[in-house]
Amino acid sequence: MKCIGPALGQEPVDTLFTNACLYDPFTCSWTETDIAVSNGWVVGTGKGYGGGTIHDLGGKRVIPGLIDAHVHIESSLLVPAEYARVVASHGTTTVIADPHEIANVCGARGIEYMLNEREGLPVDILFMLSSCVPATPLDTGGASLPARDLQVFTGRDGVIGLGEMMNVPGVLEKDPGVWEKLALFSLRDGHAPLLSGRALNAYICAGLQSDHECTGTEEARARLERGMYIFIREGTTERNLHALLPLASPSTAPRLAFATDDRHADILCRDGHIDDCIRKSLEYGLDLETALRMATLSPAERFRLDDRGAIAPGRRADFCILDDGKVFSIKKTYSRGNLVSIYPKKDSLPLPSPMEATVPRVQDLAIRGHGTGRVIGIVPGQILTEALTIDVEGERIPDTDRDILKVVVCSRYRKGMTAVGLVHGFGMHAGAIAGSVAHDAHNLVAVGADDVSIREALLPIIRSGGGLAASDGKTTTLLPLECAGLMSLLPAEDVASRLGALHERAEMLGAVPGSFMYLSFLCLTVIPHLRITERGLFDVGKFQDVPLFL
Amino acid sequence: MKCIGPALGQEPVDTLFTNACLYDPFTCSWTETDIAVSNGWVVGTGKGYGGGTIHDLGGKRVIPGLIDAHVHIESSLLVPAEYARVVASHGTTTVIADPHEIANVCGARGIEYMLNEREGLPVDILFMLSSCVPATPLDTGGASLPARDLQVFTGRDGVIGLGEMMNVPGVLEKDPGVWEKLALFSLRDGHAPLLSGRALNAYICAGLQSDHECTGTEEARARLERGMYIFIREGTTERNLHALLPLASPSTAPRLAFATDDRHADILCRDGHIDDCIRKSLEYGLDLETALRMATLSPAERFRLDDRGAIAPGRRADFCILDDGKVFSIKKTYSRGNLVSIYPKKDSLPLPSPMEATVPRVQDLAIRGHGTGRVIGIVPGQILTEALTIDVEGERIPDTDRDILKVVVCSRYRKGMTAVGLVHGFGMHAGAIAGSVAHDAHNLVAVGADDVSIREALLPIIRSGGGLAASDGKTTTLLPLECAGLMSLLPAEDVASRLGALHERAEMLGAVPGSFMYLSFLCLTVIPHLRITERGLFDVGKFQDVPLFL
Repeated sequence: MKCIGPALGQEPVDTLFTNACLYDPFTCSWTETDIAVSNGWVVGTGKGYGGGTIHDLGGKRVIPGLIDAHVHIESSLLVPAEYARVVASHGTTTVIADPHEIANVCGARGIEYMLNEREGLPVDILFMLSSCVPATPLDTGGASLPARDLQVFTGRDGVIGLGEMMNVPGVLEKDPGVWEKLALFSLRDGHAPLLSGRALNAYICAGLQSDHECTGTEEARARLERGMYIFIREGTTERNLHALLPLASPSTAPRLAFATDDRHADILCRDGHIDDCIRKSLEYGLDLETALRMATLSPAERFRLDDRGAIAPGRRADFCILDDGKVFSIKKTYSRGNLVSIYPKKDSLPLPSPMEATVPRVQDLAIRGHGTGRVIGIVPGQILTEALTIDVEGERIPDTDRDILKVVVCSRYRKGMTAVGLVHGFGMHAGAIAGSVAHDAHNLVAVGADDVSIREALLPIIRSGGGLAASDGKTTTLLPLECAGLMSLLPAEDVASRLGALHERAEMLGAVPGSFMYLSFLCLTVIPHLRITERGLFDVGKFQDVPLFL
Repeated sequence: MKCIGPALGQEPVDTLFTNACLYDPFTCSWTETDIAVSNGWVVGTGKGYGGGTIHDLGGKRVIPGLIDAHVHIESSLLVPAEYARVVASHGTTTVIADPHEIANVCGARGIEYMLNEREGLPVDILFMLSSCVPATPLDTGGASLPARDLQVFTGRDGVIGLGEMMNVPGVLEKDPGVWEKLALFSLRDGHAPLLSGRALNAYICAGLQSDHECTGTEEARARLERGMYIFIREGTTERNLHALLPLASPSTAPRLAFATDDRHADILCRDGHIDDCIRKSLEYGLDLETALRMATLSPAERFRLDDRGAIAPGRRADFCILDDGKVFSIKKTYSRGNLVSIYPKKDSLPLPSPMEATVPRVQDLAIRGHGTGRVIGIVPGQILTEALTIDVEGERIPDTDRDILKVVVCSRYRKGMTAVGLVHGFGMHAGAIAGSVAHDAHNLVAVGADDVSIREALLPIIRSGGGLAASDGKTTTLLPLECAGLMSLLPAEDVASRLGALHERAEMLGAVPGSFMYLSFLCLTVIPHLRITERGLFDVGKFQDVPLFL
């Protein structure tokens, strides 16, 4: 009701942005207008307003604040405040986040932490609650969250729905625990890579409304035409934008959105966030107006956020001013009418988390025997892995000539529990990389070309309660992650620079770009095809543990 | 959960429609597929289903059931069951109705009646509750519904939001009673003809989300780009489709829908319903795919009806099979998987209503004096009226040469209260027409070329508790409206035929086509410019009663 006076011009507005060339997602076109802001809200567009601070935009292009439809903030390695600071500078004013990583490590305490940390930021962080903690009944993480533990969060500020439901078998087999969770919320995000045919129909019947795991147009189209929203994901290593973009058109744009899912701090600082998705879309041939629809109003509509997604009366004054240059670029971001750069830096609290892991002994890392071995094949630019079968001899592993390295998983939660497997695609000729970020249980994972380096990489991570490390066996570089072993308390720029140093170190050892992100997905038991846990190899299709040798 | 077994193919489906050429509103394209239906729901599309009854559609085009975004069922003169039967045969399976007419006459009892009558029909009637009973504080109808009387209906099956908020001054002046109503629902339809600039901004800030009163593209675009949904209305006499269609494109279609608002039974039976809007859109050059988006998914999205708007898993099995011919035409309609023709005819109950009106005496009808008179000018195809000023002499009225006729309003609710005014545009050279349908208070209204005919037309309406009548002064044709003086209990075809006879009679007297609908809007004090009530002339812009002579 406070808006009415300023909207009518009976009271002066706080800030008036004149001569904007405004993008309107309702018509996907541009219009010359003023924007009147009061109390953080847009109270009017058009002419006839006065009072307050006046910014003459001189015809500059203005777009609504960008929205990320699905992200795990933890994957940036940044705490929410630092994450918000970085993505806001890239035009993002709302992210739909699933606190899945911290929930797997710390349970409800982790979700509480994220809810507290969202206060007072220039980006509105809205949570879809983690539906799968643990990710599968077989996974052993730091917590288990049944429906009753999620229920306490319903109605809380910042909680808007149920996050990606990865337990597809549980949905289709009518698992009561899964269906209790589905019943808690009316907004429910899906997660069903490669699901098709009748199983896909049933999954949609169960009330899952979106998917961000599509890797091809056929897969995405099957979901789109059955009523699912498609979030086109472009993370650090999960890059689906190029493959899915042919789907985008003015007709489909209302049912498409962008998501980054898992994007490291270094990429966020260097390439950007949703603005990067837009830039790439333009490079690949999409028109700006359609791309902007997908980055603003479409996700707002999907999540029933009537108060944003456009610069219009009664909506949040979340918007960006574009650079004049030819390349799409955010010059300034306003959140609730304020330049995001004026938001004070916020000190975040650490969140201690379990770290029972012990450094594996040399004999724990040995591979004995020979024959046809199961090897996890990483796929460049994808979160999917291949289940390779290759003739191997235990003593000749790691086999850097054929790029078959050891992958080691140590339980974070139980002492001395270690598994060893094989991985193809990392490309390292020496040394090792390791981390306490290992979706979804976030045990410790390492990949290396020799056992000494693997131990050296794991050691400081365990000592410091979590982190990422790269080692050549003699010297080890560490980025500590004090917050649940997932996030650093350092400023974003420092995390980006130290992560950059880690990646540089890994690449000097021969590793592929983004190696720490690939590393973090090796344990991800909910995405095909072959994974590894602290128990050993896991075949996602069969949904069971499998031995290293056939 | 019942859907899961049939969706997975673990249980046979009830009905399988094979070889459909299916319209998919998510991509605005057509796809070859089967449609599996179980328990009234679509459980799957694609191939691989079996069991149950199989209908081979042989490649016929199938579209989702059509949706009317805003209608007053009472305006058809049909009770809900008969209304549903007619519009279902034209492909409609959902209507968003505002029981505004019956609420103005009978109050909460009228709304209860409509809620009871919606049960078991082939069309899902969903109500946006009447926000303005009476339409203005000055109107005296049969009831007054403050927020507390609406609140009792929240959460009721079939109640989804707040209907068209016509009290624009109340909204902008922060009238507590109006704002209490706004706070009751999250879905709120607007109604703000010709509102613009800062007042429009303020109205939108107040939370009004749609408008169906636009008559021009500039007016509609101003709303669209500020975030309002635009319902393109094509009623019996309120015809905005041709003027507004230039707005429609693949980009805007998600924010546009069709509405009929007020459409008489005869037009419904002859021309159709939303199918008629689609046919006209095609005639005017819109592509079928965009028109269908506006008739299906767009209104479903606007009203957050995730269970319809498309033929997709987990949605209602509401769909239509199209004729093969070149002209867009509905061949068969299915509601919840059943052919609508199998729905049994339902007997509706009458609803007695106040009828205190007395036939005006001859002296009540006299116009005395002369000078520049205010004359209501009807505008062909519009609900807006003109405020004409014409030199007139009391004794020379009616003046059929200049088409200046008398309009008479008698209170339905208070004995002997009669007002007389002047109207231009009806074209009658003799006789009179009258009715107890007179938005929004639904007093009695008559237009005629002589006082005797006016009295003769009013008489049987009053005697029978409501109806429509045409008289040449000697013989009078009557269609009784037993249900609140607004709706007939007769079958739709009979109402259409008797209404047709009335219109024919009126046209023989010289009246414009649709004269009874124009007649019913003469008292509509919420739409510019000049109206008449039982108190006399009313200037909508000034929002006050005005005398006949300047």
